Amino acid sequence: MDESPDKAPIKKPVLIIGRQPIVEAIESGRTIDKILFQANLTGDIIGKIRQLAKQHNIPIQVVPPEKLNALTRSAHQGTIAISALVKYLDLQQIIDHVTASGTAPLFIMLDGITDVRNIGGIARTAVCCGAQAIIVPDKGVGALNEEAMKASAGALEKIQICRVSSLLKAIDELHLNGIKVFVSDMINDKKLPDIDFRVPSCIVMGSEGQGVQPYISKAADERFCIPMAGEFDSFNVSVATGIILYEAMKQRF
Amino acid sequence: MDESPDKAPIKKPVLIIGRQPIVEAIESGRTIDKILFQANLTGDIIGKIRQLAKQHNIPIQVVPPEKLNALTRSAHQGTIAISALVKYLDLQQIIDHVTASGTAPLFIMLDGITDVRNIGGIARTAVCCGAQAIIVPDKGVGALNEEAMKASAGALEKIQICRVSSLLKAIDELHLNGIKVFVSDMINDKKLPDIDFRVPSCIVMGSEGQGVQPYISKAADERFCIPMAGEFDSFNVSVATGIILYEAMKQRF
Repeated sequence: MDESPDKAPIKKPVLIIGRQPIVEAIESGRTIDKILFQANLTGDIIGKIRQLAKQHNIPIQVVPPEKLNALTRSAHQGTIAISALVKYLDLQQIIDHVTASGTAPLFIMLDGITDVRNIGGIARTAVCCGAQAIIVPDKGVGALNEEAMKASAGALEKIQICRVSSLLKAIDELHLNGIKVFVSDMINDKKLPDIDFRVPSCIVMGSEGQGVQPYISKAADERFCIPMAGEFDSFNVSVATGIILYEAMKQRF
Repeated sequence: MDESPDKAPIKKPVLIIGRQPIVEAIESGRTIDKILFQANLTGDIIGKIRQLAKQHNIPIQVVPPEKLNALTRSAHQGTIAISALVKYLDLQQIIDHVTASGTAPLFIMLDGITDVRNIGGIARTAVCCGAQAIIVPDKGVGALNEEAMKASAGALEKIQICRVSSLLKAIDELHLNGIKVFVSDMINDKKLPDIDFRVPSCIVMGSEGQGVQPYISKAADERFCIPMAGEFDSFNVSVATGIILYEAMKQRF
């Protein structure tokens, strides 16, 4: 455990170049981080890629052709997919797996956190504190890329990652499975130590600038803030997650 | 409070060029981060700079003349001082000030933490949790530079900083003032929640790679670790400081 953890070899993302290879990669179960499309692509197989992308929550990003040309010298037919460094799992699958192991779920949901170092740091803390999964939206969150991987000191490979097309739908699914959703925010009536994390729990962390989006916060069961002694804006989101998960861990073990 | 906090204008360090200006700057009470010396400097005034540097715990770094030439086009006479972005205060002065305010001291001491982002993050957390001072050695610690300032979201200007030539001597001084010294380490008999932080306290944080140096750890009153639920190396040092200071804050307020 170095101060800047970089002992573990960092995996690099693989490019999947061209239309048919992308279809095959997705159909074979390969996890894809995103698909780059040049504007105005047409054709049956493009329709198929769009459909598969939707089905697997893979974001599609439209880019100028120069971007694709810069990534490869091969004939890319207007599209390149970037393989994911982490394996994305289905939320229900994760819940079933954790529940079957006899442990109460302790999940983290990230809303609008774009700094990849913070995401990596959160993953590292989550593993240290015994959280089992991180739920991320397919848009508006920093990529789980090499830098995030490095900041996580490898933890992103040790924790289950679930990518969803809608955080709200994910909250519904958590509720259906008896998991309570807690939102960490700046000003709230409840303080962190007042929350009971011994129940199956998912904690939503928002960006430091915006906080958790109001419609997400409304869908949650309880909202709380970390008490502060000093007069200062706020904790860094990665430190805040550490404090919250420490509190949850203390209550549980 | 942005995710990458950069709202506050970041101060830039000022260069003090030439021998007499450096002497005058130090004598006038200006805080200096370090003094760059070209090799084999001689002369009365150089002796005087050395003496003043020692007296004020200012590190001297010997550099090739090209480094000095790259910093300025002015006649530097073999030496340039870099002004500090933060104001360094005397440890006894800080203790007296905190004690006079009726608060029990809660200090952080940094041993061998070189990542300036971590130092900035620790300062931010320290201010949030009501810690009053950070003690740093004059060598072997990351600079309190612009990057640290940015990572601290301005907190480095809100907390008292004490730079000492010897952490061991600083521990002696803390002890003489009735302040208990706690060391956070990886494997220890005591767990974080077992420590009583309601007494005047100074918490020593070491680098993630090396931990707190053994001779410092030995001089401390108690050693503890943060309990971990998951099987993973360790918390990031900035997150660990957050967890420890949260525990201290909870006990105190």
